[in-house]
Amino acid sequence: MNLNKSSVVDLPLVRQALGLGSPGRWPVWFMRQAGRYLPEYMALRSKMEFVELCRSPKDAAEVTLQPLRRFDLDAAIIFSDILIPCTALGQNLTFGKGHGPQLSPPVQSRDAFRRLRRPDVAAELGYVADALALTKSKLPPGKALIGFAGAPFTVGTYMIEGGSSKEFTATKSMVFRDPVLFADLMKLLRDVTIDYLIMQVKAGADALMLFDTWAGNLTPIDYARDVWPVTADLLATVREATGVPVTYFSGQGSDRILELGGNAQINSRKAFDVLSVDWRVRLSYAARLVKEAGLDVALQGNLDPQALIGPEEQVRASVRSILDEAREACDAGLIHGHIFNVGHGLLPHTPPEAVGWAIDEVRKHGANGPTR
Amino acid sequence: MNLNKSSVVDLPLVRQALGLGSPGRWPVWFMRQAGRYLPEYMALRSKMEFVELCRSPKDAAEVTLQPLRRFDLDAAIIFSDILIPCTALGQNLTFGKGHGPQLSPPVQSRDAFRRLRRPDVAAELGYVADALALTKSKLPPGKALIGFAGAPFTVGTYMIEGGSSKEFTATKSMVFRDPVLFADLMKLLRDVTIDYLIMQVKAGADALMLFDTWAGNLTPIDYARDVWPVTADLLATVREATGVPVTYFSGQGSDRILELGGNAQINSRKAFDVLSVDWRVRLSYAARLVKEAGLDVALQGNLDPQALIGPEEQVRASVRSILDEAREACDAGLIHGHIFNVGHGLLPHTPPEAVGWAIDEVRKHGANGPTR
Repeated sequence: MNLNKSSVVDLPLVRQALGLGSPGRWPVWFMRQAGRYLPEYMALRSKMEFVELCRSPKDAAEVTLQPLRRFDLDAAIIFSDILIPCTALGQNLTFGKGHGPQLSPPVQSRDAFRRLRRPDVAAELGYVADALALTKSKLPPGKALIGFAGAPFTVGTYMIEGGSSKEFTATKSMVFRDPVLFADLMKLLRDVTIDYLIMQVKAGADALMLFDTWAGNLTPIDYARDVWPVTADLLATVREATGVPVTYFSGQGSDRILELGGNAQINSRKAFDVLSVDWRVRLSYAARLVKEAGLDVALQGNLDPQALIGPEEQVRASVRSILDEAREACDAGLIHGHIFNVGHGLLPHTPPEAVGWAIDEVRKHGANGPTR
Repeated sequence: MNLNKSSVVDLPLVRQALGLGSPGRWPVWFMRQAGRYLPEYMALRSKMEFVELCRSPKDAAEVTLQPLRRFDLDAAIIFSDILIPCTALGQNLTFGKGHGPQLSPPVQSRDAFRRLRRPDVAAELGYVADALALTKSKLPPGKALIGFAGAPFTVGTYMIEGGSSKEFTATKSMVFRDPVLFADLMKLLRDVTIDYLIMQVKAGADALMLFDTWAGNLTPIDYARDVWPVTADLLATVREATGVPVTYFSGQGSDRILELGGNAQINSRKAFDVLSVDWRVRLSYAARLVKEAGLDVALQGNLDPQALIGPEEQVRASVRSILDEAREACDAGLIHGHIFNVGHGLLPHTPPEAVGWAIDEVRKHGANGPTR
């Protein structure tokens, strides 16, 4: 592994900022903390298309840093999109008004799969590395920089469907009718994502996150058979190669958690340090499942992003409830840390001041950190 | 309670057909078993609008009976839609091409709520009773007739949003910003739904099902505080008034199950006999949660409707896996019965022959019923 270790600066600080074992400051950041709910983002975005913004290191770095100027956050997450790597695979990516991302041509046959390229990630997605390096150079001390990618299943659904989906009919057709083709696509995405995430750490990412937003739509049995082994391999490989903390987000409730520890193939390899859970599960219950699955990890989450619509006292009460459950789970030895976050990305209508209330409540109610 | 008990025919048979305690035949039916995947439905539907079909007892009964002519099913579920009662409350219901149901005007203020009517259900929704009575008169012996309604939260989301929603922003705005108005809407829907379900039993329904498809989008804490008490009251009231088996479907995974037994208000009242679970959870795991929640119930479910896209052997293997898990849960005393079903409604592209394979596999592999 050719990783330039000197670029992985201050790992103990990063680990502490992400709540991995050290008491003290309770770490907090928000999924999609850079984005449409911020007027300063909308001002910049009005001048260029979304994909163009992702491809411009200077603008992507600027947008990444915007929320840290406004809020007392512990981490920046590089501004990008989980579908950016699909462009290097040979698909065309557009974001049409009102109908979300579109990828063409869709990959629904062996022929379409054969036309995908195994890219030289550094050459074709180097602008993401440049954005990370630029962000890193401007990041205030003590703040962690998070790199990320979409997980093979979640990215695969967009590649197969040609965009967003409600029922995942084309994806499940492939899973059930052509499992060999589906497995080949998963393996290609695993390999490209390994390269992509390692590149991000080389460029300055202090931690990594893998988003498997739609994994919850498969049955736990199909997920455990067709998706988790290749995903776990990806995560463990990246974790071993880079040495940075890795977070996995499996999306949509708790039904996946027990599967995450149960794969013989990965029993001897730790796949992730932090499990990010969405708002559909009580944090205390997720912590129990994590323990039952034999996972030795921290939890991240899980405020309902819509709870930020509410009045100040309701926002603060929701935050306190999560902090209390997290501290109890830490004290009971179920998890060994907690990162406060939302259960899914912030929404365009989120009032920025509500994000401020939530962070302030983490600072006050969580003053002594998640572990006593 | 003015229920004509003589219309509740053959209750032991119904209970047996629904798997409630008696060994023998393994009960099977499918959510949305009448509908667009059947050519005979499409033929009839091509002659009239969807809402018109729901309002025509003769046609609704015909459509209800169609799948029972084709397949060896144990129950018919009356053909209708969970939003039909909203028309009696004063909203206009249309199904536009490509954008799902639309209800106008949306209920997003106290004023809009005041304009809703508390309807005389028998007078305004009598066509549903007529459809049930007509279906009952034509139903082969030994088959159960199921009536249904949407749960207050799920129906409420459509009334508040004015249609389908992805993020439920208007609904959650009301939950968080005007909880008193939200509670008033839930109570109105509880009262109307109680009348509506009792009417269906009077008309011939042998069992009832309440669909809370979107309940899983709330946090378990918000659900337990704002939604489950009023829903449990509805279910228990209908169950006590009618004496027929009641099934509750809470949608989207297992994260709700532990909340269902935990409400002091309903500790002394049984809310439902059967819990219907979707495909996102392993049946064996749902059974454990049911036991932990102190629920003395049967489970229904939970084949991924998309699994019916697959080749015959894959469909049969998926069915066997569910039957095996259900039988084990019954034998372990976690649940006291199982009704084979999908985890959500059949989809328009479902191949009818796959439904046949699934039922055949239930008959073969489940030959001795769910309990030994």
